Amino acid sequence: MPIDKPAFHAIEWRAAGLRLLDQRHLPHEECYLDLADAAAVAAAIRDMVVRGAPAIGITAAYGVVLAARQRFSQDPGNWRALLARDIRTLAAARPTAVNLAWALQRMQVRLERTDDDALQVLLDEARAIHTEDVTANRRIGELGAMLVNKGASVLTHCNTGSLATGGYGTALGVIRSAWAAGRLERVYAGETRPWLQGARLTAWELTRDAIPVVLIADGAAAFLMQRKRVEWVITGADRVAANGDVINKIGTYQLAVACRHHGIKMMVAAPCSTLDPTAPDGQAVPIEERPAGELLSLDGRPVAAAGAAAWNPVFDITPADLVDYLVTEKGVVETPDREKLAALLADSAMAG
Amino acid sequence: MPIDKPAFHAIEWRAAGLRLLDQRHLPHEECYLDLADAAAVAAAIRDMVVRGAPAIGITAAYGVVLAARQRFSQDPGNWRALLARDIRTLAAARPTAVNLAWALQRMQVRLERTDDDALQVLLDEARAIHTEDVTANRRIGELGAMLVNKGASVLTHCNTGSLATGGYGTALGVIRSAWAAGRLERVYAGETRPWLQGARLTAWELTRDAIPVVLIADGAAAFLMQRKRVEWVITGADRVAANGDVINKIGTYQLAVACRHHGIKMMVAAPCSTLDPTAPDGQAVPIEERPAGELLSLDGRPVAAAGAAAWNPVFDITPADLVDYLVTEKGVVETPDREKLAALLADSAMAG
Repeated sequence: MPIDKPAFHAIEWRAAGLRLLDQRHLPHEECYLDLADAAAVAAAIRDMVVRGAPAIGITAAYGVVLAARQRFSQDPGNWRALLARDIRTLAAARPTAVNLAWALQRMQVRLERTDDDALQVLLDEARAIHTEDVTANRRIGELGAMLVNKGASVLTHCNTGSLATGGYGTALGVIRSAWAAGRLERVYAGETRPWLQGARLTAWELTRDAIPVVLIADGAAAFLMQRKRVEWVITGADRVAANGDVINKIGTYQLAVACRHHGIKMMVAAPCSTLDPTAPDGQAVPIEERPAGELLSLDGRPVAAAGAAAWNPVFDITPADLVDYLVTEKGVVETPDREKLAALLADSAMAG
Repeated sequence: MPIDKPAFHAIEWRAAGLRLLDQRHLPHEECYLDLADAAAVAAAIRDMVVRGAPAIGITAAYGVVLAARQRFSQDPGNWRALLARDIRTLAAARPTAVNLAWALQRMQVRLERTDDDALQVLLDEARAIHTEDVTANRRIGELGAMLVNKGASVLTHCNTGSLATGGYGTALGVIRSAWAAGRLERVYAGETRPWLQGARLTAWELTRDAIPVVLIADGAAAFLMQRKRVEWVITGADRVAANGDVINKIGTYQLAVACRHHGIKMMVAAPCSTLDPTAPDGQAVPIEERPAGELLSLDGRPVAAAGAAAWNPVFDITPADLVDYLVTEKGVVETPDREKLAALLADSAMAG
């Protein structure tokens, strides 16, 4: 049974502005924030109202529309200069996901080529970024699902679904498509400390679609593999470097190492907007470190003794040679490397 | 500077009975429970008032003393039969740590050889089990610390300190000794979901001893290794099978796999009471699975969507070939295997 209609919109453009589902309160509450300017959008990205590389890019694109509208009404003669500042604010909201810079760059290029009706053109561009992402996810889902053997159980990490993208999802899109095709037995989801995106968000999305989901502690993944309970690990990406190194949620690298040890296949599902040909390899990508308090506290209450420190990188780097398949909307890259990614991007540039 | 005096007693025998530090409330509250009979001791072990393989064994031994005292006063003619039932209750409290069965077996053997003054003899035996464990930990600490290169940083998992043992600790004993010898730079501690023993207990013990501790999410360990921040992983064990397979807190196996991938050394520190020559290998050992609610909730509040399931094995199996050093009070076993462990136990039987 195909899963066509999302039951919610994580990102929704409305006449009044941008409406975001506040993901920090899921699954307990479905509350929405209405944002009217770039500063509010940057804060929402920074504070993780919205997260997930594609969703961050789409949100930032709409943020440019809001900023343009506001700056134009403030100063019709100088609004483009003011907007440039807003774009810099948006770009600085989070460092690791390249989709943010990619979407802002695309909005900027579109703006530079436009003289008339710039506000409408920017809105159209943001909407295009949004709908293209959903289309890309659907294609990624189809391509990825074809790789999955019938009856497989898979492990995923973090949240890569409708909440993390324009809709449908990357790794979760593959999982949705594989489920719809009758290929999947069960989905295991790592809870994904410290933000618990697996427990809070992925379980919420999958239970809504009636796809069987079993949470595990992040530390239990290798034992799950030893017990032969999964045939695949499927994750998203926040950035893919030119050589195929994958930057994704902390814990992904550990899963990839465990996959290799057990001969289990590792699939990374990401749209081409996540590929960064300017980063030669993963070590060139800035890895965001978030406050120690995210590990030292739970729900605002200290959990660790006073005096303990914490190291809280929220992404890690999986070397390309641990990735079996990179699934993009332009095609599947087996054992990605620099040459194969360059060819994929060249093809997609020609096609585009 | 040697760290000689523990600042607290997790397990303390008092005239009135057995006093346990209730570890479920650490680090927020230091509250103590006074237990008077075997059922209360079994419940305390099952409900994780006390945890850690050696500590469970010591607690159960004192539980036998309490049970003997109670049964003798109830029925001086038939108390041994009643006590046998209590011992079975204690033995069933938790399945994985072999120290529980080991301590109960030792108490039972002592009882069978005693006609007079059995209550005093049992108390002496429980105290011996307790003090021998502290002595063993000190020796393990010395032997393990000698392996650690000067200036090393180490990663540990779960809690293996004074809270988990008779005092001092196994892996944390090695860390204490290495710190006292000026060899350690820093200790990283995995937070250890779902019970957060690393965050709640290990950080508490180490900050009390002014040893620098940095918490990480369990999923960040491999990235910590990729970043070359640690030279060792040091853990305890809940059971070591005859072939050297190590059963320990969930997440240990994943660390061992990541160690091997990065060429980082894996040390397991455990007293001989944790060796189980009757288990041919790790797969023969029952792995406790605790309620799904431990993953689906936080502090009693649901964290995952209703309808999500969870798989919550709280131990895993590290094959012997991933263990570089097994450090016991009888000596260090490099790359443990069946022959080396049999030799160690034969030597220790002769010495004992």
